[in-house]
Amino acid sequence: MFKVQVPATTANIGPGFDSLGIALRLYNTIEIEEISEGLVIEASGRDAELIETDEGNLVYKSIRKALEKINYSPKGLYIRQYNEIPISRGLGSSAACIVGGLLAGNMLAGNMLSKQEILELAVEMEGHPDNVAPALLGGMVVSAKSSGATAYIKIPIKETLEFYAAIPDFGMSTKMAREALPQSISLKDAAFNIGRAALLVSAFATGEYDKISIGLEDRLHQPYRLPLLKPLKEIFQQAEEKKLKNIFLSGAGPTIMYLSWREDKSEVEEFKDIISERPEAWRVERLKVHDG
Amino acid sequence: MFKVQVPATTANIGPGFDSLGIALRLYNTIEIEEISEGLVIEASGRDAELIETDEGNLVYKSIRKALEKINYSPKGLYIRQYNEIPISRGLGSSAACIVGGLLAGNMLAGNMLSKQEILELAVEMEGHPDNVAPALLGGMVVSAKSSGATAYIKIPIKETLEFYAAIPDFGMSTKMAREALPQSISLKDAAFNIGRAALLVSAFATGEYDKISIGLEDRLHQPYRLPLLKPLKEIFQQAEEKKLKNIFLSGAGPTIMYLSWREDKSEVEEFKDIISERPEAWRVERLKVHDG
Repeated sequence: MFKVQVPATTANIGPGFDSLGIALRLYNTIEIEEISEGLVIEASGRDAELIETDEGNLVYKSIRKALEKINYSPKGLYIRQYNEIPISRGLGSSAACIVGGLLAGNMLAGNMLSKQEILELAVEMEGHPDNVAPALLGGMVVSAKSSGATAYIKIPIKETLEFYAAIPDFGMSTKMAREALPQSISLKDAAFNIGRAALLVSAFATGEYDKISIGLEDRLHQPYRLPLLKPLKEIFQQAEEKKLKNIFLSGAGPTIMYLSWREDKSEVEEFKDIISERPEAWRVERLKVHDG
Repeated sequence: MFKVQVPATTANIGPGFDSLGIALRLYNTIEIEEISEGLVIEASGRDAELIETDEGNLVYKSIRKALEKINYSPKGLYIRQYNEIPISRGLGSSAACIVGGLLAGNMLAGNMLSKQEILELAVEMEGHPDNVAPALLGGMVVSAKSSGATAYIKIPIKETLEFYAAIPDFGMSTKMAREALPQSISLKDAAFNIGRAALLVSAFATGEYDKISIGLEDRLHQPYRLPLLKPLKEIFQQAEEKKLKNIFLSGAGPTIMYLSWREDKSEVEEFKDIISERPEAWRVERLKVHDG
C-alpha cells in the first residue's frame, strides 16, 4: 500500500494568468495497492458523490499515465481516494488528482520518474503548469511552459501569510470560464498585467508584502469572468467600495480569496461580513501555505 | 555648486514591457549653481553636439520642474552637463537627464522633495517608470504605475551579472519604436509574457540565474521592433541560430544587450563575433549593475 497527500492550489492570483500558483493546506489523499486483478476505486470525503469510480476516474487515468511511462503493468489496482479539496471551485482539485495519481503510480512502479518528469506529465494532462507545479512542489511557484519543458522557480513565503477562501455551494465550469476570455486584449492591458505580475512576485520574493495590494490588480481574466456569475461580480464590487484590495479569484473561480499578512484582521472581518450577508451559501476557510 | 551623477538604464529586459529596468555603471553628470541672472548651459561628453543649450534642454526643464514643485525661484542658473550615456540608443539617456535635473533642482532648493516625490515627477515627465525608477534608485527595479502613485520594488542583483551592450552608430526614434507596436495582442501572447516576466524577476530575486534564458523570451515588443531595423533583425536571427539565448533589446533599442553571469564567457565571445562581423559600426561595452 502506498499513500500520497497532495495539496489544493490557488492559481492566477490576480495578474499571474496561467503562471502563478500557491499550494494550500487542504489535501486529497490517495492510497494505491496492486491487487490480483481488476480495478477497485473507493472515493470518500468532500464531493465524493461527484467522483467517477471506473476507468474515467482522473486519479486512475493519472496513475496509468505514470505506469505507461515507466512501462509497468500491474495485474489489478485498488485505489482509495479521500478528498478535502472541493471540485470545480478553483482550488486545483483536478491538479491534485493528476499529481496525486502520477505520484502514486510512480511509487507503485518503484519511483522511476524524476520530479521534472512527473511535472511534464502533469502539465501535459492539465494543459498549463500553474496548478500542477505548486501541487507537486509546494509553496509558491512561478512557472512557464517552454518548448518541451516547464521552467519553474519556488518563491519562499512567510508563515504569516493567510488565505481566506470563500467557497460557494455552486461550481464554475472551467470551459465556461475559459470561453469568457477574449481572444485578444489591448497592449495597454497586457503591459498592465505584466507589471503587476512582476510586482506581485517581487513582493513575495523580497518580503515587501505591503506592495501585494497593487500587485494583485488584474485586467486580463477577472474583468471577464466576474460577470459570468452575479454573486462574484457583486462581492468584488462591494469589496472595492470598502477599499478591500487584497482580493482575487482563485483560479477561474468561483472561490474568492482574501489575502492577509497583517496582525490586524479588520479587513478580513469586513470581507467575511460581505460574504455572510450574501443570499447564497458560502463558507469561509482559513488556509495557510503548504510548503512541500 | 551641486553635483549629481545618474546612471544609464536598460528597460523592458525581454518580457518586462514598461515595468522592468536595471541601472548600469555608465553615467551622466550634472553640476548646477545659482548665478546672478540668466541661463548658461554647457554640455560635453558623448553626443554633446545633440544637446540643446537653451530652455529646451531636458536637464534644465527637469530642474525647473523640481524648483516649481518646491516653489523656489533662482535668480539665474549655470548648468554643466557631462554625458557618458549615448542619446537615442535605448540606454535611458532621457531618464538620466530627467532624474538628474530633478535631483539637481532639489539639491539647489534645499532637498525639500522625498525620493517618492522625485519619482512621481520623473514618471510624469517620462510617461512610464521603467527607466526613471532604476535611474533614481539604482539596481534592478520592478515598477508599476498605479492610480496617482508609482509602486516599486528593488531586486538584489549579484555582482557576477554583466551586461554586454552592443551600441550601434545609428539611433532609434522612440516614437517610431512605439508606433511599431500593435494596439492589441492575443491573450496567448499576453499570458506568455506574464509568465516570462514573473519567471525573470523570480530568477533575479532568488539567484536562480539559470532560469534567465527562458525568462527573457518576449512576444510583446521585440517581434514588432526588430523588423524596423534590418541589422537588429539579422543579429537576433544569427543569435538564435547559434542558440545564444541571453539576448534582448535594451529599451526600445537599437542597443542590443547580452547578459552573462557565468565564468565561461564563450557565449559572450560568440555574440561579440556576430557584432564584429556586421557591416555597420557597433561598439560592445561591458557594463555592470549600478547599485545606487
